[in-house]
Amino acid sequence: MSSPVEFSFTDYQPYDFANRRHIGPSPREMEEMLKVVGYPSLDALIDDTVPASIRQKQPLSWGAPMTEREALDRLREIANKNTNLVSLIGQGYYGTITPPVIQRCILENPAWYTAYTPYQPEISQGRLEALLNYQTMVCDLTGLDVANASLLDEATAAAEAMAMSQRVASSKANAFFVDENCHPQTIALIHTRAEPLGWDVIVGDPDQDLDPAQVFGALFQYPGTYGHVRDFTKIIASLHAAGAIATVAADPLALALLKSPGEMGADIAVGCTQRFGVPMGYGGPHAAYMAVKDAYKRSMPGRLVGVSVDARGNRAYRLSLQTREQHIRREKATSNICTAQVLLAVMASMYGVFHGPEGIKAIAQSVHLKAVRLAMGLEKLGFAVEPKVFFDTITVHVGPLQGAIMNAAVAEGVNLRKIGSDRIGISLDERSRPATLEAVWKAFGADFRIAEFEPSYRLPDEALRNTPYMTHPIFHMNRAESEMTRYIRRLSDRDLALDRAMIPLGSCTMKLNATAEMLPITWPEFAELHPFVPDSQSAGYREMIDDLADKLCQVTGYDAFSMQPNSGAQGEYAGLLTIRNYHIARGEGHRDICLIPTSAHGTNPASAQMVGMKVVPVKSRENGDIDMDDFRAKAEQYSAQLSCCMITYPSTHGVFEETVREVCEITHRHGGQVYLDGANMNAMVGLSRPGDIGSDVSHLNLHKTFCIPHGGGGPGMGPIGVKAHLAPHLPGHPERNGEGGAVSAAPFGSASILPISWSYCLMMGGEGLTQATKVAILNANYIAARLKGAYNVLYTSKSGRVAHECIIDTRPLADSAGITVDDIAKRLIDCGFHAPTMSWPVAGTLMIEPTESETKAEIDRFCDAMLAIREEVRAVEDGRMDKANNPLKNAPHTVEDLVGEWNRPYSREQACFPPGSFRVDKYWAPVNRIDNVYGDRNLICTCPPVEEYAQAAE
Amino acid sequence: MSSPVEFSFTDYQPYDFANRRHIGPSPREMEEMLKVVGYPSLDALIDDTVPASIRQKQPLSWGAPMTEREALDRLREIANKNTNLVSLIGQGYYGTITPPVIQRCILENPAWYTAYTPYQPEISQGRLEALLNYQTMVCDLTGLDVANASLLDEATAAAEAMAMSQRVASSKANAFFVDENCHPQTIALIHTRAEPLGWDVIVGDPDQDLDPAQVFGALFQYPGTYGHVRDFTKIIASLHAAGAIATVAADPLALALLKSPGEMGADIAVGCTQRFGVPMGYGGPHAAYMAVKDAYKRSMPGRLVGVSVDARGNRAYRLSLQTREQHIRREKATSNICTAQVLLAVMASMYGVFHGPEGIKAIAQSVHLKAVRLAMGLEKLGFAVEPKVFFDTITVHVGPLQGAIMNAAVAEGVNLRKIGSDRIGISLDERSRPATLEAVWKAFGADFRIAEFEPSYRLPDEALRNTPYMTHPIFHMNRAESEMTRYIRRLSDRDLALDRAMIPLGSCTMKLNATAEMLPITWPEFAELHPFVPDSQSAGYREMIDDLADKLCQVTGYDAFSMQPNSGAQGEYAGLLTIRNYHIARGEGHRDICLIPTSAHGTNPASAQMVGMKVVPVKSRENGDIDMDDFRAKAEQYSAQLSCCMITYPSTHGVFEETVREVCEITHRHGGQVYLDGANMNAMVGLSRPGDIGSDVSHLNLHKTFCIPHGGGGPGMGPIGVKAHLAPHLPGHPERNGEGGAVSAAPFGSASILPISWSYCLMMGGEGLTQATKVAILNANYIAARLKGAYNVLYTSKSGRVAHECIIDTRPLADSAGITVDDIAKRLIDCGFHAPTMSWPVAGTLMIEPTESETKAEIDRFCDAMLAIREEVRAVEDGRMDKANNPLKNAPHTVEDLVGEWNRPYSREQACFPPGSFRVDKYWAPVNRIDNVYGDRNLICTCPPVEEYAQAAE
Repeated sequence: MSSPVEFSFTDYQPYDFANRRHIGPSPREMEEMLKVVGYPSLDALIDDTVPASIRQKQPLSWGAPMTEREALDRLREIANKNTNLVSLIGQGYYGTITPPVIQRCILENPAWYTAYTPYQPEISQGRLEALLNYQTMVCDLTGLDVANASLLDEATAAAEAMAMSQRVASSKANAFFVDENCHPQTIALIHTRAEPLGWDVIVGDPDQDLDPAQVFGALFQYPGTYGHVRDFTKIIASLHAAGAIATVAADPLALALLKSPGEMGADIAVGCTQRFGVPMGYGGPHAAYMAVKDAYKRSMPGRLVGVSVDARGNRAYRLSLQTREQHIRREKATSNICTAQVLLAVMASMYGVFHGPEGIKAIAQSVHLKAVRLAMGLEKLGFAVEPKVFFDTITVHVGPLQGAIMNAAVAEGVNLRKIGSDRIGISLDERSRPATLEAVWKAFGADFRIAEFEPSYRLPDEALRNTPYMTHPIFHMNRAESEMTRYIRRLSDRDLALDRAMIPLGSCTMKLNATAEMLPITWPEFAELHPFVPDSQSAGYREMIDDLADKLCQVTGYDAFSMQPNSGAQGEYAGLLTIRNYHIARGEGHRDICLIPTSAHGTNPASAQMVGMKVVPVKSRENGDIDMDDFRAKAEQYSAQLSCCMITYPSTHGVFEETVREVCEITHRHGGQVYLDGANMNAMVGLSRPGDIGSDVSHLNLHKTFCIPHGGGGPGMGPIGVKAHLAPHLPGHPERNGEGGAVSAAPFGSASILPISWSYCLMMGGEGLTQATKVAILNANYIAARLKGAYNVLYTSKSGRVAHECIIDTRPLADSAGITVDDIAKRLIDCGFHAPTMSWPVAGTLMIEPTESETKAEIDRFCDAMLAIREEVRAVEDGRMDKANNPLKNAPHTVEDLVGEWNRPYSREQACFPPGSFRVDKYWAPVNRIDNVYGDRNLICTCPPVEEYAQAAE
Repeated sequence: MSSPVEFSFTDYQPYDFANRRHIGPSPREMEEMLKVVGYPSLDALIDDTVPASIRQKQPLSWGAPMTEREALDRLREIANKNTNLVSLIGQGYYGTITPPVIQRCILENPAWYTAYTPYQPEISQGRLEALLNYQTMVCDLTGLDVANASLLDEATAAAEAMAMSQRVASSKANAFFVDENCHPQTIALIHTRAEPLGWDVIVGDPDQDLDPAQVFGALFQYPGTYGHVRDFTKIIASLHAAGAIATVAADPLALALLKSPGEMGADIAVGCTQRFGVPMGYGGPHAAYMAVKDAYKRSMPGRLVGVSVDARGNRAYRLSLQTREQHIRREKATSNICTAQVLLAVMASMYGVFHGPEGIKAIAQSVHLKAVRLAMGLEKLGFAVEPKVFFDTITVHVGPLQGAIMNAAVAEGVNLRKIGSDRIGISLDERSRPATLEAVWKAFGADFRIAEFEPSYRLPDEALRNTPYMTHPIFHMNRAESEMTRYIRRLSDRDLALDRAMIPLGSCTMKLNATAEMLPITWPEFAELHPFVPDSQSAGYREMIDDLADKLCQVTGYDAFSMQPNSGAQGEYAGLLTIRNYHIARGEGHRDICLIPTSAHGTNPASAQMVGMKVVPVKSRENGDIDMDDFRAKAEQYSAQLSCCMITYPSTHGVFEETVREVCEITHRHGGQVYLDGANMNAMVGLSRPGDIGSDVSHLNLHKTFCIPHGGGGPGMGPIGVKAHLAPHLPGHPERNGEGGAVSAAPFGSASILPISWSYCLMMGGEGLTQATKVAILNANYIAARLKGAYNVLYTSKSGRVAHECIIDTRPLADSAGITVDDIAKRLIDCGFHAPTMSWPVAGTLMIEPTESETKAEIDRFCDAMLAIREEVRAVEDGRMDKANNPLKNAPHTVEDLVGEWNRPYSREQACFPPGSFRVDKYWAPVNRIDNVYGDRNLICTCPPVEEYAQAAE
């Protein structure tokens, strides 16, 4: 008999997720890479890269990593601790039916969920079309002119509308009016947002409490949170007369039946498209929308998809008016919105395509008539039902019976909404069935059958809509599932996502989104919970959230975490708010200076501005490091008013600055707090902890470091960690603890994607996470080593190392050959790659971040492409290639180029198959280079006429 | 207040699955199509197409159709009636872990599961590569030379090995020896298969009961069903000396540790790759394998993928040696195998790629050592454990404790195997965990911990393998999930499946495989059940199966259904076997004549041959109809021996013959039974019932008519329906009712895909199914109308109508322009289509079946392409286009054509963008036309050397 040693199972561990599946390079590849970088071992490289002074003392550890199956079993266990009742709570969240084809072909399809934000439009035409459909649908339903490509949630969108109103109103008043019929979380967020900016918020009855002369804007909910359907036309007219801006927060499903905000004269409409096929997910993610009158389109926050043309004059989509974005406005911004909820907006838009206006209207009618039936039954029982005119939501006066009825409903499997101490709210939806209504009646004590009631509209004719919507052919295509499947596939095939190639975007950390991490998010126990269910029904969610928070504390060295911020920028804002509240609580509310290095990401100053801080820029040295002399001087100068400093670590230039502890010490010495931007945590996890270095608060981009996919430009999650002294000042939420301090609509932000990060932590273990960080650094240094000589690698540490990303300088090529960073980015498309981050943090550079998930083979393919591009540039430099007519300037090349006349001084072969590109499996860009200027000059942000969609043979 | 009538919900029913999602043409499109066909209404067309004499009297109905959500809720309810315990029953089915990336990106990806059999190799390169990997893996593990691309299940594969042995053995003996250690279902199937062919089956101990001179072949199980690991080298040598063939049924996971069948001298190896990542699924589908010595490759049944070159000399894959297939051999066949289990073989091959040989070996080691630990514990308790030498399975002598221990195990959540009345079998697997072992010990009365036992191999050195396997680079690629995801995506992108275009394959009924139908099959409650769990744990499955059978009875007019046959051909075989057993039971076993029209599908005579019937061909008229005079004459002539006739209805020529009732009457009059081939049921459901017309038995292709996807060439399901008098003779199964008559390894065939057909029935309702049939007929007649004039439409009814498919004659084009049916098929690839069925049932024709799921737009796109092709042919006819160098002869065109030199008398534009093709979203074939002859002459059926896989830039 052989001894087991000979065949030891430990020889090879097939279920080792960290080292076999998540981390790209194999041990042997790593050896080869280390040789190229010039280190005998990974640890030697790390020791030489990450300063000893900031290294953490204890290795990160929380027990053995789980296998994929163990993690899924654990997730299943946690999921089973959630209880799926029928929630008729409403308040902005409604049951919906995700069409299976949309669930499988979009939400569960890596071609959609692993895509990046469509900044490179040539390789993003698919999701840009879907987003344009979304914008068109929103414009149509709201009756407004221009809609953006989605915002984080309805409450955030409302707050953005307030900020925008303040910017564009001709009124110089300082107050914002909020209809008391707005959702409580919306009101809370408006308070949070207004207070630091010094704006007064008046909450009241629009008919009684609104004095147009006193406000720069007003917000109305439509239908109201308690069900009322009111016509705001007259009030809006009076606001306009006073130079104020009117915003209507409207339920898009209701708009299928009701007069639109645009018809009432609203300037802005906001709302949430959750109930267009996106599961409630215990709060998110969902796509909120904002639509505005044409006059205000350049003031609208968020991303905006528009139509332009490519180099052949063919129609092509792109992000329009990008100069509006916060990273350009910096400290002048009143919004720090960076991201959208693309994946969810795509789902909602496809729900619109799937059902079309007839379907949406039929669903709205059905929901209304169900609500009427329900009301009729309750009235028959003698209950007073409000309002008289409603869409899907009614409020029932129950007096002291409130608790008993709510409990009886739960016993019947239904959650109702508690309103005050004597009322109950009920909102019906697409999923409500006869049994649902009968269960509610039973909770109220009656044994009615649905057939007993013959409903008729509780909407007066004047409330009804008589304008068309969703008239574009895309909403009238044949919606047989074969066609839907193929339409969705065609769009996704136009795009280049992580499922086809690495996306070496510096600072964006496009790492593997493992399937095992993604599977649980569509389980009903995670997907279908209303955010305001009783805690007893969300025990699994909260256990998971607590454990994830605990692990993130271990990772960061912080003492507490808030999961509320549902984007990185939101996290920054929440973190600064926490600092602000801390100072106020200590009686030092005057501290309002925020020191920010000039090299910081534009979101930093924008966020500081939003919490009423004054941004004082600190000089950066040429290598991106903080100029310590200037920092000391500014800290000294503003010592008495110093609120905080915001730093990024490792720096936005990809370097571990050795002075980081000193920066923290200086800040603290002057009474300030340190905000350490967690954008680059992928270079720190397991090696260094912000909390140990001296930082007080950070946000983590779970969509970067912790594997939440980018979804084509959202969702994201930006939870914040804080030291103990800040913990009492973390965001609150009206549904959990008081009215104040909410930063997101839902208490735990986009809770339904947290299983992704949690299972990542479970499967990696502390050791695996640490190894991932090391390999991310190795991969970046390997790229730097391979590109050295061909390109100038900017910003290395004293030892010549980069952190987890490397910046290469392409400015010399502009001088020598007229080749811009844009040309290189587009040429990379020919090679089958998404470009690295362009011109950030330094114009004319490319910032490359491979992450730990890319294998040596894929990285080599990328480096081969980059080196070949350098050779092409050299050909231009040497005069062997024409300056204007060369493969770089003409990139990306499409099949149209091949098919047409060829009058170029290089071959088709050279054009299409540069090094790096696959031969058989080549990705073909669907359009040639897109004209940005044309698109901004001729702004079209809704679906262009029909020809575009006459896809069939030509 | 408005009245609800005005906005009635019934105006538009957004959840109407039948009419909005499954059936392609919208009502308006149907109107337009009817105009073209020339009928005022759909019913008028149907009345003129389907003879009144065969129309069913009662409309098909089983209550209101369900919405997608209702059906999913119902499925969930049924699923919850199944109980997921840990099954250690073994007997050919084992727990396995499907890697999530394989689950999501293959099993749940329409690009894989909606593909057709790779008969058109240019658009099937992705799955052909995956199948080649499969064949290579099987060859390596078994140590044999050539493996096929999978068979239906292990028991079928063993029976095929027997039949093949009989064909190739030089011994003229008439018996087949079966090791008593074979799985019971394998033994049962061997009996079933041998008996009608007159072969003796000897079941016994190879050491004692096998006389090589008496047998043409022998089958051994390795490891044996009770766990034994034996070396068959000597026995095999003695078989060879006697001119007999040796087959080893081997567990592929065990082969990672054990000496291979090839090394023992085996001629054939069979087995099942289920435990390579394919869930047990209550019995299937899984991919069985067969591998043979090189000398026997041309006698091997099943599909075989091989390597060839394309028109540019580039390597390309294709199905090899197709002339072996049954449709060519007809009544000379001893196998009727048509299909494979492609989707499952692809999964198993990817499991091999995912784990590689190190991983597979580590898993095998781990399973073995777990089994050893388990045995040590039981031995410590004093139980006699057999055998001494084992891999994963042990047999425990428990005497009278059997029932108590089995029950105790169930209480601990574990199913064990009952062997006889005094033994228990236990098979461990990849999923077995420490808690699993501890639960088993507990059932045996001990409270052991796994750490108490230090296992060492229970395999002697001479049993161990010391030959390498899976040495090809594909099994050594970096298996980081990023790479796996991209490899899977690249392969799927090479293929054209239903998710991109219609597949108008006549007789194959490539209809929508709706997502809602597909979702449940990966639910653990369906996916993870062992086929031999106690009935109490499979209540949901059986309730569903009973209800589906009931619905299929309503559809067909039969009285009973057997779900056992797991392919259409298997269904034919099972149906004829049922007829045979019926005659025998009535003392008319001499009836052995089967009348089959010459126009029948080749599987018909092959199936008849397999049940020992003598096939008497009946003439077909030129239009494919049965020659009634000849039929009468033959029935008369063979009256005394008439067993049955086999007919296809509507005919294989796509016509509803009016004489069908007469055929049935004549057959019955002569004491025969009628087998009506259900291949064309898609033209009958709801309109006409075989059982009403006079047929006694039919198989239904659930993968045609009832929405099971084709999976790239399997799985299928071919249940049979019979009239009451035949019901007692339906297939049995050793695990359910006696030892006899099994036709598949599992009692309910590929049970885990039945939810697809069931949910289809639930969502369509009887009315929807009927409408689908009507629209399928409309779609086919619309195509016939549109192509009329350009092509000659063969075989119409007296009224000039076709049924659900239409045959067009391309022979005139061969005469006039030298353009073959193959040229047209390949040119259709340029247009973005899979070709219709080629040269069947008549050489030189194309048989087109659009199904009801295709929209008018897609059908028009196809017709446009066909009409444009006709114009291209005309250009050749007219001499405007060269006879040899034209777009038809050079099709399909690839990017390589565009990039390279262009010396053709037509433009690149004409080449690549013929009418019908998409412009932006064009599908590009990855290879040019493939040379079939070269591939058969230079047969290579394992992965070619490494260059092929050096995908990266060149």
